[in-house]
Amino acid sequence: MSPPAARWPATRVARLFGIELPILQAPMARAATPALAAAVANAGGLGGLGSATLSLAALATEVAAVRAATNGGLNLNFFCHAPPRADAATAAAAAAALAPHHAALGLAPPEAAALPAVPPPFDAARLDWLLAHPPRVASFHFGLPPAAAIARLRAAGVRVLATATTLAEARAVEDAGCDAVIAQGWEAGGHRGAFLPEAADRGVGLFALLPQVVDGVAIPVIAAGGIADGRAIAAALMLGAEGVQIGTGFLLCPEAATSPAARAALAAATDADTHLTAAYSGRPARARATAFGAAFQSAPFADYPLPRAVTGPLLAAAAAAGREDYASFHLQGQAAALARTLPAADLVARLAAEARVALTRS
Amino acid sequence: MSPPAARWPATRVARLFGIELPILQAPMARAATPALAAAVANAGGLGGLGSATLSLAALATEVAAVRAATNGGLNLNFFCHAPPRADAATAAAAAAALAPHHAALGLAPPEAAALPAVPPPFDAARLDWLLAHPPRVASFHFGLPPAAAIARLRAAGVRVLATATTLAEARAVEDAGCDAVIAQGWEAGGHRGAFLPEAADRGVGLFALLPQVVDGVAIPVIAAGGIADGRAIAAALMLGAEGVQIGTGFLLCPEAATSPAARAALAAATDADTHLTAAYSGRPARARATAFGAAFQSAPFADYPLPRAVTGPLLAAAAAAGREDYASFHLQGQAAALARTLPAADLVARLAAEARVALTRS
Repeated sequence: MSPPAARWPATRVARLFGIELPILQAPMARAATPALAAAVANAGGLGGLGSATLSLAALATEVAAVRAATNGGLNLNFFCHAPPRADAATAAAAAAALAPHHAALGLAPPEAAALPAVPPPFDAARLDWLLAHPPRVASFHFGLPPAAAIARLRAAGVRVLATATTLAEARAVEDAGCDAVIAQGWEAGGHRGAFLPEAADRGVGLFALLPQVVDGVAIPVIAAGGIADGRAIAAALMLGAEGVQIGTGFLLCPEAATSPAARAALAAATDADTHLTAAYSGRPARARATAFGAAFQSAPFADYPLPRAVTGPLLAAAAAAGREDYASFHLQGQAAALARTLPAADLVARLAAEARVALTRS
Repeated sequence: MSPPAARWPATRVARLFGIELPILQAPMARAATPALAAAVANAGGLGGLGSATLSLAALATEVAAVRAATNGGLNLNFFCHAPPRADAATAAAAAAALAPHHAALGLAPPEAAALPAVPPPFDAARLDWLLAHPPRVASFHFGLPPAAAIARLRAAGVRVLATATTLAEARAVEDAGCDAVIAQGWEAGGHRGAFLPEAADRGVGLFALLPQVVDGVAIPVIAAGGIADGRAIAAALMLGAEGVQIGTGFLLCPEAATSPAARAALAAATDADTHLTAAYSGRPARARATAFGAAFQSAPFADYPLPRAVTGPLLAAAAAAGREDYASFHLQGQAAALARTLPAADLVARLAAEARVALTRS
């Protein structure tokens, strides 16, 4: 009988990314830092950084910080979506939608001023930058870049990943030429990746999604959503996944850019205190449930990512007033209560050991 | 090394119910038949019958039919809910809510007549009957009977189960004295069991729910929702479950009372074609998505189970007209596409063999 350490299954995901452990640290915009990504990479997993809230210059700075700390695996994540409509009518509609919430906090009504500039979605400039500075992995959310862009990235040696929330989306990811697909279950914190179309999202749970995606595509499948410990890694492997992506589970690491308020929310998390809301960004994301989030669950008041830019005064005032029902936009998944306060390297080692134990015990 | 057949883990669930395999056939009201329950029991699992749509006399007839075919394990399921408000105002509101849908099908407006009598929830008469004819297992959905009733059932040798959709509900199930808890994931077909309160349901997926319930209660946990093959059984065991309950996975068995239309819907199922709706019964249930279901997803037009009784003319006319967008109320879960057309005994054997293979391969 093999010793436990030898029982970790060799998966195509580990080989594809040149990593020891098929554990991806989710490239969470704002929360994932160079220190977090480097620590995960040095521990044998795949580190990740998000670009959604960054200019290309800022992303370059972050990538340089990772490179200074590790030569391990790095995944850069980009969002594929239509540029937002930032016209005067949108600004007026956003102001009208937010007015009752300003009133609830005793604030003056919001001004329907010009909407702020926001980082663009994945575009030619970002593609050129990636081709000039190829990371080991590039990943896409909210859909896919053109197939020609994927082909150029792969020709440059970049492994390409994209998120799917249904089998149909997974097939689209495979057909576009991606190396692997992330099957994002309903449980996942952060933005739903649904794109065929976004509005048709019916919220498929990972238990049902994973085996149907595994059966329906030939490329390797990476499980995401509700995975925060080694038991869940073992379960995902049973369902046919060849790797896992963990986001919320890393948010209590000291390397994560998790605010004190968000750390407190995570420490008090239960299985049932999140909801999907488009209130804060314009697209549905799983976050800790709040009254403000509940007000815009299904109908955002402006296109992604404009709401994030125009709710600033409201959220700052709410935070100052201690109004958790408005202030606390904490992206977290349904397994947030299983997140642990550990250095990222220790957490990766713990995850791997737990998975090995579960797989060996069976 | 042990042969595969010996690798099936011994669980408390199997011992508790005196069954060989910790596989529960969900006690689906209307779809589960005495033939199905008996076949599952004879194959080593736990058969189940639902009572929600039956008078006590009809349930007694069904139980007698099971007893004639097996001395194996049988689980009788009861619903715990407030009796519906069946007054004139409710009848008028239901008629008003249904009128546009009658019009869409070219039917005369519905009459706001007296509402029909419906089978009551679990009550003293049902408790007395159970005590006089104790099944091996009694289970409860939509909540819990009084603790004294649970104690009397257990004293009579009946094992008692109840459904939870959150850790808080699972703790309530344990505190009430139940022998085990069914952790029902978001993926599950049929009625959500949420009860603390029903309206607070946030839809926790099984991947996140299961380990949190396992960590939070001492009684054995049975996983339900999205489980239709042996891979998923193995995954549930990895997450700490000691048994599984499968519903939709049995609907294509010849023994199930699945209509030809529902069989056709199942044969064409995808991962993403269900939604929760209260349109048909008054409580949220996962079913194949239809336009009629979408019209009453969050706000039923009458208390459970009155809608089932008053939509009869509408649904019959829609079926006659071939209007699938109205007619097809097919309860099914998110893993419906994994259901197989096999005799129930063969399916149980296949499920167990698949799980053993998955657990042995790891």
